[in-house]
Amino acid sequence: MPKVYFYPDNRGVEVEEGENIIRAAMLAGVHINASCGGTGTCGKCRVVVDKGETIKHATAKLTPEQVEQGYVLACTTQVKSDIEVRIPVETQMGDSRAALEREHRPVSRGSVLTSKDLSELFGDFDLEPATHRYYIEIAPPTLEDNLSDLERLKRELTRTHKVGEFTVDLDCLRRMAVRLREADWKVTATIMEGADGECPRLIRLDSGDRAQTHYGLAVDIGTTSVYVELIDLNTRESLGRVSEYNAQVSSGEDIISRIVYSLKNDGLERLQSLVVQTINGLIDRLLDKTGVQRDDIVYMVAAGNTTMVHLFYGINSRYIREEPYIPTVNFTPTVKASNLGIKIADGARIYCIPGRASYVGGDITSGLLASGVYKTDKLTLYIDVGTNGEMALGNAEWLLSCACSAGPAFEGGSVKHGMRAVKGAIETVRISTETLEPMILTIGQTKPKGVCGSGLIDTLAELFLTGIIDERGKFKLELGHPRIREGGGQGEYVLVWADESATKEDIVITEADIDNLIRTKGAIYAGITTLLDSMQMPVEAIERVLIAGGFGRYLELDQAITIGLLPEFTAEQVMYVGNGSLMGAHLVLLSQSARRSAKDIAQRMTYLELSTHPGFMDNYVSALFLPHTDIGAFPLVAQRVKERSGIYGSRDVR
Amino acid sequence: MPKVYFYPDNRGVEVEEGENIIRAAMLAGVHINASCGGTGTCGKCRVVVDKGETIKHATAKLTPEQVEQGYVLACTTQVKSDIEVRIPVETQMGDSRAALEREHRPVSRGSVLTSKDLSELFGDFDLEPATHRYYIEIAPPTLEDNLSDLERLKRELTRTHKVGEFTVDLDCLRRMAVRLREADWKVTATIMEGADGECPRLIRLDSGDRAQTHYGLAVDIGTTSVYVELIDLNTRESLGRVSEYNAQVSSGEDIISRIVYSLKNDGLERLQSLVVQTINGLIDRLLDKTGVQRDDIVYMVAAGNTTMVHLFYGINSRYIREEPYIPTVNFTPTVKASNLGIKIADGARIYCIPGRASYVGGDITSGLLASGVYKTDKLTLYIDVGTNGEMALGNAEWLLSCACSAGPAFEGGSVKHGMRAVKGAIETVRISTETLEPMILTIGQTKPKGVCGSGLIDTLAELFLTGIIDERGKFKLELGHPRIREGGGQGEYVLVWADESATKEDIVITEADIDNLIRTKGAIYAGITTLLDSMQMPVEAIERVLIAGGFGRYLELDQAITIGLLPEFTAEQVMYVGNGSLMGAHLVLLSQSARRSAKDIAQRMTYLELSTHPGFMDNYVSALFLPHTDIGAFPLVAQRVKERSGIYGSRDVR
Repeated sequence: MPKVYFYPDNRGVEVEEGENIIRAAMLAGVHINASCGGTGTCGKCRVVVDKGETIKHATAKLTPEQVEQGYVLACTTQVKSDIEVRIPVETQMGDSRAALEREHRPVSRGSVLTSKDLSELFGDFDLEPATHRYYIEIAPPTLEDNLSDLERLKRELTRTHKVGEFTVDLDCLRRMAVRLREADWKVTATIMEGADGECPRLIRLDSGDRAQTHYGLAVDIGTTSVYVELIDLNTRESLGRVSEYNAQVSSGEDIISRIVYSLKNDGLERLQSLVVQTINGLIDRLLDKTGVQRDDIVYMVAAGNTTMVHLFYGINSRYIREEPYIPTVNFTPTVKASNLGIKIADGARIYCIPGRASYVGGDITSGLLASGVYKTDKLTLYIDVGTNGEMALGNAEWLLSCACSAGPAFEGGSVKHGMRAVKGAIETVRISTETLEPMILTIGQTKPKGVCGSGLIDTLAELFLTGIIDERGKFKLELGHPRIREGGGQGEYVLVWADESATKEDIVITEADIDNLIRTKGAIYAGITTLLDSMQMPVEAIERVLIAGGFGRYLELDQAITIGLLPEFTAEQVMYVGNGSLMGAHLVLLSQSARRSAKDIAQRMTYLELSTHPGFMDNYVSALFLPHTDIGAFPLVAQRVKERSGIYGSRDVR
Repeated sequence: MPKVYFYPDNRGVEVEEGENIIRAAMLAGVHINASCGGTGTCGKCRVVVDKGETIKHATAKLTPEQVEQGYVLACTTQVKSDIEVRIPVETQMGDSRAALEREHRPVSRGSVLTSKDLSELFGDFDLEPATHRYYIEIAPPTLEDNLSDLERLKRELTRTHKVGEFTVDLDCLRRMAVRLREADWKVTATIMEGADGECPRLIRLDSGDRAQTHYGLAVDIGTTSVYVELIDLNTRESLGRVSEYNAQVSSGEDIISRIVYSLKNDGLERLQSLVVQTINGLIDRLLDKTGVQRDDIVYMVAAGNTTMVHLFYGINSRYIREEPYIPTVNFTPTVKASNLGIKIADGARIYCIPGRASYVGGDITSGLLASGVYKTDKLTLYIDVGTNGEMALGNAEWLLSCACSAGPAFEGGSVKHGMRAVKGAIETVRISTETLEPMILTIGQTKPKGVCGSGLIDTLAELFLTGIIDERGKFKLELGHPRIREGGGQGEYVLVWADESATKEDIVITEADIDNLIRTKGAIYAGITTLLDSMQMPVEAIERVLIAGGFGRYLELDQAITIGLLPEFTAEQVMYVGNGSLMGAHLVLLSQSARRSAKDIAQRMTYLELSTHPGFMDNYVSALFLPHTDIGAFPLVAQRVKERSGIYGSRDVR
C-alpha cells in the first residue's frame, strides 16, 4: 500500500491505492480544511504534492499558477504511489469538512474478515446445499411399464442419482403429467432436504436440463437494512449482493416500535408485507443485474433477529416485548416462499437460521457460525453493536450470550441531530485540541445533514479528549469558545454552522445527546463485563474480539475505547466481521452441515437475561462515565488524555 | 327369523321380522299383483293371513267385511311371527307391481359382511390413528426458564407423552403465542404422523382439554355417490354415515366424460370444487346430526378410484384416458384439508388410500384391505360391479387385478329407460312363465320411472328364462304377446304401460338395451376368466367371492349367474362386502398399521391391462351370449331353463 506523509505535521499513513488525500489526512490525524463535503467546489483543501504520483482531476478552483506550483485539491486527488504532501497554513487552520464514499472506507485499526477468510470458512463445509437439481431422461410409459408418473420419476431418480423416499408438493403434482409429456420426459427434478426431521420433498419439476442453473439467496433481515445475496449453488459463486432499507422502518425505527405497530389492526400483516416488498425489490434488482431466471432460485436462507424473523413469518411477536420476553419460536420450520409472498421459484423454500432467545436471534447464531466462534479454541467476544447490543462470549467449549438493550443512539435515534448512516451524515469527526474547531467527514460527499453512529462516537471521544466535556459528559462552558454554548437550558457543541449545513441550521451535540450516548456505550460495556463476571473471568481472558454489524464495520477501535464502549482491546485482537449474519446465511445456504452447525450453536448457547440481572445494573452504573468510573481499567485512555493535553495545551482534562 | 308360507303356491321363505308380505312373496318367487308401488293405494295386493301374527295398517282399500274375513294388503302388512298367507286368484293374476324401501332389503342369497365382521377386521389392527391429541398443562415461562413457546410445548409433550421431534404448520405458529396465554398454558396439541416418510407435524393447538374430542372422517368418493362417515378416533365408534350423489355427475356420468370435462377451461377446477361441495355438504349434515365441533375433526381418509382422487386433488387426469393409461400418481401425499377446500379443523390433513393403476384405484385397495383379501389363505375374487368393473384375484401370497371397462349399463347408462338406483327405479323384476306378465318392485314405493341396474339384470334374466329372448338376446316376436312388440325397428318388451308409469309413457327394454347389457356382463365375465387364465387356474379354484360396491349390494346371485355375469358360484362362496371402499378408509383412519397395509397392497398388486390383452378379447367375444357360448360352463342355468320350461309350459327355450 502507498505511504502518504504529511508536512508540517510529520505524520505518515498507509492507504489503499486510489484513496484520496483528504481521507489519508483524516487517517493520519492531520487537519485539512474542507467545507463542500468533498465535491471539489469550495477549493479550501489545497495541498501541494511534493513527491510521488497522484491522479489529478481538473478543477476551476485552482489557478494555472497554482497548478504549476504543484497545488491540488486534497479531496479530488487520488494516491498512486508513495507521496509527500505539504499542507499550506491557510489549509490547516479554520473550519473544515470533508466527505468520502463510505463504501470504500477502510477501517483504521483492526483487521477485516476478507473473502479469503470466508472461503477458508467455507472450506470447513462440504458443498451440499439442501436443494438438489437432478436432470433425468425418463423412459416413457408403455402398456407393459405402466407405473404412474410420480413413481416413474422416483424410479429414475433412484436409479440414476440414488435418491431415496421423498414426498411431493401438491402444486407440483397437479402439473406433473403435462410437464413430463411436454418436456418429452426430459426433466429436472428439484428436491429439498428438510431440516430438523422434515422429509425430503420434490418441490419443482422443470422441462429440460436445468441442473446447472441452481441458485439460492442468502438474506440478512436487519431491523434497518436488508441484504440479499444471489449465490450459485453449484459453484458457491456469489453473483451479486444488494441492500436496501427495510421498508418496515416507516412503521418504527426499532424492534420495540415495530412490535407495538404489529399489535395494531392489520399491523402484523402490514409489517410482514413491507419486509417482503423490500426483499422482492432486491431480488428483482439481482435478477435484472445477473440475468438469472426467477424460477431457478429454489432456496433462500435468511438470518435476522428474533423479532425480524417473527414479523417475516407473520408470527405474533407481542410477548417478545413483555417480561419474561418469550418468542414463539427460535427454531422456525422451513416454509414455502410463496406462503410468505417471496417471489422466487414456485415451490422454493425458505429456511431461517435459528436464534436463541427474544433478543439473541438467528443473526447472532449466523454470525457465530460465519466467524467460526463456535469451533475456535480462543476465547472470543462476538459483538454486534446495534440497537440491541447483542453479544456472545465463548469458544468451541461453551457460548454465553446476552443483549444489553443499548438503545438506538448509535443508530442516530434519541440524539437531536442524529441520523442513520446515509448520504450527508457526518461519520467522522476530529476536534483540534488547539483551536477546538472540528474537522468532519460526511457520507457521499454532500453537505452535512446530521450525525450518524460513528460520527457520534467520534464526537463524544473528541469532546472528551479535548476537554470540552468532563468525564460525566458535562460541557465546560467556561472555555468560552463560540462553538461551546448553552442552548435550551443545557450545554451543546456546534459541529456545523447553519450556513454550511444542508439543513440551514446549526448541527449540534447536546448534553442530553451525550447522556444518551453514554447510556448506550455504558450498556454495551456492562454487557461485556457481565458476561465475563458470569464466567468469573477477567477482561484479559478475552483473546479475540469480533465486531459485527453494518455499524460495527465503521466503528473506530481507538475512539470506541476512548469513550469506554469497549475495554482496551488491542488492534491485533480485533477483527471486523462485517455482515456476519449474511455470511452465516450464505454458509447455511451452501451446506447442510453448516445448517446443522447453526442449529447446534443455537441449541448450546446459554442466554443471560440482563434486563433483570443485578450484576448488570451495577456494571451499567459504573460504566456511565467517560471512559469509566474505574479509570484504572483504561490506562491507555488515561495516557492518551495526558498526551493530548501535553502536546496541544493544558486544559483541565482529567 | 319368521317363516312365511304361501298358498296355493306352496312356497315358503324366511324373512326378517318386520318385513312386509309382498317382499316375502318376491323372495319366495310367488306372484302378487300390485301397481301402486307399495303405497297401499291400489288395493290390488289383497291377501289373507290364515295363521300367525302380523302388524297391520288401517286402509280404506279394504271393506269392513274383507277385514273381518282376514284380508290385508300385502304391501303394508308386516310379518311378526311364522305366518301362512293365502293368495286369492284375483291377486295372483294380471299385471302387478310392488315397491319397498330399498334400504331395508336383504340380499336374497350369499351372506353380507356385518358390523361384527368389521369389528373382527378392526381387531387385527391396533387403534393408533395417525393423529394424536395430547392435553398438556405447561409451566408458564419465567426469566429463568425462558424457552420459546414452541420449544416449551415440545419439552412438555416429550416429558408427558414421549413425543419425539416434529415440525409445525406456519398457521399454527402464527397464533401460538396468543393461544397459549389465552388458554393459561393448558392446551391440546394435535400431532399428525405422516405417511411414507412424511415427518410428524403439529397441526393444531387448542385451548383446554380436547383430547377426548378427537374425530376423523372416512370418505368414499365414488363416481356416482359420495359417502362420509364420522368416527370417534378415541373409541372407534361410528357417529354417523351419510351419502349424496357426487355433484360432478352434472358434468358427466362416468369417469371418461369427467376427464373430458376436466380438460375444458376451468373444467378441472370446477370438478374439484363440485366434489368438495358434496363432501362439505355431507360434513355439515354430520355436524348437525351429532353436535361434533368442526374443529375437532382433524383427519380425513378418502378412498376413490384413481380419476376421482385426481379430480379431488385437482391433478390433471388427461393421461388416465389416453393409452397407455397412466395416472400422475398412485401414492398421493398427505395434504392440508384447507388446500383442497374441505371444511374441517384448520390444520386437518387428508390422506387418500393408494391405488394401483389408472383403472384400479384406491377404492379397490381399500376394499381388499377391509375384506381381508390381502391376508387370507383362500383364493378370493374381489369384484366391484360398476362402470369400470374392477376386480382382483388373489390371497395373502399374491394379488392380480384388472378393470374391464364394463360400461355404464348396470348404472342405468346407455339403456333407453335405464336410471340410477333412486326413488321410482324398478329394482326387481319377475316375469311369469305362464302369462309373460311382469311383477316389479320399485325403490321408495312410488310409481315406476325407469329401471336401475338390478332391475335390468332381473329383466335380462327373466326375458331369457321365459324364452322371450334367445341366447343372443333377440326377441321372439312370434310369441304374439302384447308386451313383446316391435318398436323403432327393433324388438322390445313393455315392463310398464304408460298409464301405470310415473312418466306417462311405456317403460320398455329394447334389443339395443339388451345388447348393451350383454356387452357389460360379458366384459365382467371375461375379466374374471382372463384373471384366471393368467394364473392358469380354473374357475373352480376360486374359493371365495366378494362382491363390493353400492350396486353389488343389490345384485342377486341367481340372476347374475343366469345371464352369465358371474360363473356358477354357490351362495356359500359369495359374500357381499357392501361399501368396501368406505370400510377400508375407516380402517386406515383408525390405524397406522392399516395405512401401511393399504400401501403394501397397492404396491404388491399386479395389474393386468385388459384393453390391449388378446386373451381378454377372446374371452369377451365368447361371453356375448346368454349365459355363455360354452353352456357347459353353466350347468345349473341350463337346468333352471329346463325347469322353468318344464313347469310352466313348453316354449322354445334352449
